[in-house]
Amino acid sequence: MLGQRSFVRVGVDSALHHLRGLTFDSAVFEDVHCQWSPGGGCVYPQDLLSRGDGSRPDVQVRSTDSLRQSQCRRLRGYQRAAIEQFLSEAVTSPWEVVRCLVPDEQGLIEASLEELVDSEGCSVVVTTGGTGPAPRDVTPEATEAVCERMLPGFGEQMRAISLRHVSTAVLSRQVAGIRGSCLILNLPGSPRSIREILDEVFAAVPYCVDLIGGPYITTDPSVVDAFRPPHARRE
Amino acid sequence: MLGQRSFVRVGVDSALHHLRGLTFDSAVFEDVHCQWSPGGGCVYPQDLLSRGDGSRPDVQVRSTDSLRQSQCRRLRGYQRAAIEQFLSEAVTSPWEVVRCLVPDEQGLIEASLEELVDSEGCSVVVTTGGTGPAPRDVTPEATEAVCERMLPGFGEQMRAISLRHVSTAVLSRQVAGIRGSCLILNLPGSPRSIREILDEVFAAVPYCVDLIGGPYITTDPSVVDAFRPPHARRE
Amino acid sequence: MLGQRSFVRVGVDSALHHLRGLTFDSAVFEDVHCQWSPGGGCVYPQDLLSRGDGSRPDVQVRSTDSLRQSQCRRLRGYQRAAIEQFLSEAVTSPWEVVRCLVPDEQGLIEASLEELVDSEGCSVVVTTGGTGPAPRDVTPEATEAVCERMLPGFGEQMRAISLRHVSTAVLSRQVAGIRGSCLILNLPGSPRSIREILDEVFAAVPYCVDLIGGPYITTDPSVVDAFRPPHARRE
Repeated sequence: MLGQRSFVRVGVDSALHHLRGLTFDSAVFEDVHCQWSPGGGCVYPQDLLSRGDGSRPDVQVRSTDSLRQSQCRRLRGYQRAAIEQFLSEAVTSPWEVVRCLVPDEQGLIEASLEELVDSEGCSVVVTTGGTGPAPRDVTPEATEAVCERMLPGFGEQMRAISLRHVSTAVLSRQVAGIRGSCLILNLPGSPRSIREILDEVFAAVPYCVDLIGGPYITTDPSVVDAFRPPHARRE
Repeated sequence: MLGQRSFVRVGVDSALHHLRGLTFDSAVFEDVHCQWSPGGGCVYPQDLLSRGDGSRPDVQVRSTDSLRQSQCRRLRGYQRAAIEQFLSEAVTSPWEVVRCLVPDEQGLIEASLEELVDSEGCSVVVTTGGTGPAPRDVTPEATEAVCERMLPGFGEQMRAISLRHVSTAVLSRQVAGIRGSCLILNLPGSPRSIREILDEVFAAVPYCVDLIGGPYITTDPSVVDAFRPPHARRE
Repeated sequence: MLGQRSFVRVGVDSALHHLRGLTFDSAVFEDVHCQWSPGGGCVYPQDLLSRGDGSRPDVQVRSTDSLRQSQCRRLRGYQRAAIEQFLSEAVTSPWEVVRCLVPDEQGLIEASLEELVDSEGCSVVVTTGGTGPAPRDVTPEATEAVCERMLPGFGEQMRAISLRHVSTAVLSRQVAGIRGSCLILNLPGSPRSIREILDEVFAAVPYCVDLIGGPYITTDPSVVDAFRPPHARRE
């Protein structure tokens, strides 16, 4: 466990198949040479990011669903872009992002969450996708496995927010929990839903991170009106 | 496990005691000869249905509460009628109903849920009643025991819907979960509450059944505006 | 287990550290001689109450957070006052309160809940505080450990009520459950939040207590419009 930091590191852990789903909807793909190991090994974020163009978050994915089997694609990371855009608008205290992209296997997701919290020292980790009812959706299971305690209010609130926009939000199994001094939050796979949710739930994140021993996070009240009780404020 | 069907079978599993509660409120009873085995054996649906008049869903129940102990009554199945009325208005793809009536014993409810999913090939199973705080209410426990994963959003949404009408909806422990390619959903015992809930939550059922490998369900958008993301539509 | 009572006993179990938090906000403290055992032993309610002035619910607490370490203070029990004020306005059938104050240790909270239910014969027990994400918050864990079944709707509704007022309500892990013929309900630590929640959720408490075999509770409909289905009314 790292010592207390004066800035917050935000880990972003994206499950592959939800990026995949975006090919049909809103993501931009380009054919690229396949970088995926034939044995199905984990795509580590450093590998991915070293191939980005520096100016925008690009990732390598190999789609495996029936329509695009054995093709390799480049997905512009709209999910991560939505998260990082939000952070740049909302968080006024120092922050940096650690990115991670893992296949939809519970063990690999657990390992990447543990690394983001224990080795990378993240105080907030958000995952994207992998929370639906399909058999391949295992992100909530992985999150629960690495957390010491769960915060059921986040799942309830995130579903209630998304239900205002789409009736199938009820199918989401999103959870949130605490590992050490880190809050782990499952977000949906759609960039628009990610933003709708962060706009509301992030108001409780700074005080939550206070209570579990993380850094003091401040926000721009015109974007997110984060609440702290008077005795917890440092101004 | 059966192969994929082109039509959806909807299993209806009703716990006895909630039919019982209806005697005071809204159900119509007639004295009939007692068909219940003295040892308290399970009333199997084939036994019940073979004694129905064919034109409406009638079931045999023996009430066991203090006011009507050791009497046998015929209950017109208002709960099942509410469900089947809804299905006939809402579902435009082929469907059929498999009915089941079991006493409030967790083992018997589990067995009937397993039969509806594994042997009868139902893609959707709805239960009625047995979700309250009383000791005899064991339907959520039975549902959880036979499901491979739970969908907490349904319980939250169903309680929120009923809370608009009655404050005691908070007492309901309704759950929903997945067994194989089947969605199992606990409904309350009151026919009016059943309809209020189905009118809203059914919008997410067709896409849920898609995602878990069941048949493609279509609905009448004037009754239920079922949502699927664009890439999941077959039109 | 005691026999059925004609009046309801309401147990109030307050975790210490949330009383502590109030020092900064809304509670009134006075320096008093330290009554706490140096070994950090449990403060039993009989000890506390024997030192009260009789006219108002006073308790002895020793604050242990960084700002007031090793000081002893007298806290006017605003949390209990909020609960007892509510009961005196809302409940028209006979009732009495059993008070308990325990440190934030799961084993001690469990023991006090068991005592309030099994020995004191309470039909309703409310706890205050100890439901947040901080490591010292263990009231939900203690509640779940002593309950035979949980009622998830209460946690959902209590968070939804508090979310109307403060965004950090999402952090609450409040639960409710049943032990024997008693409903145990976790309330937050803030007296204002306690009242906001009781004003709404208490409407379901009398029928819940009916269903689990407790006494028949009646309320003043101008304060709380408690609902019972027609067949459960005794008028």
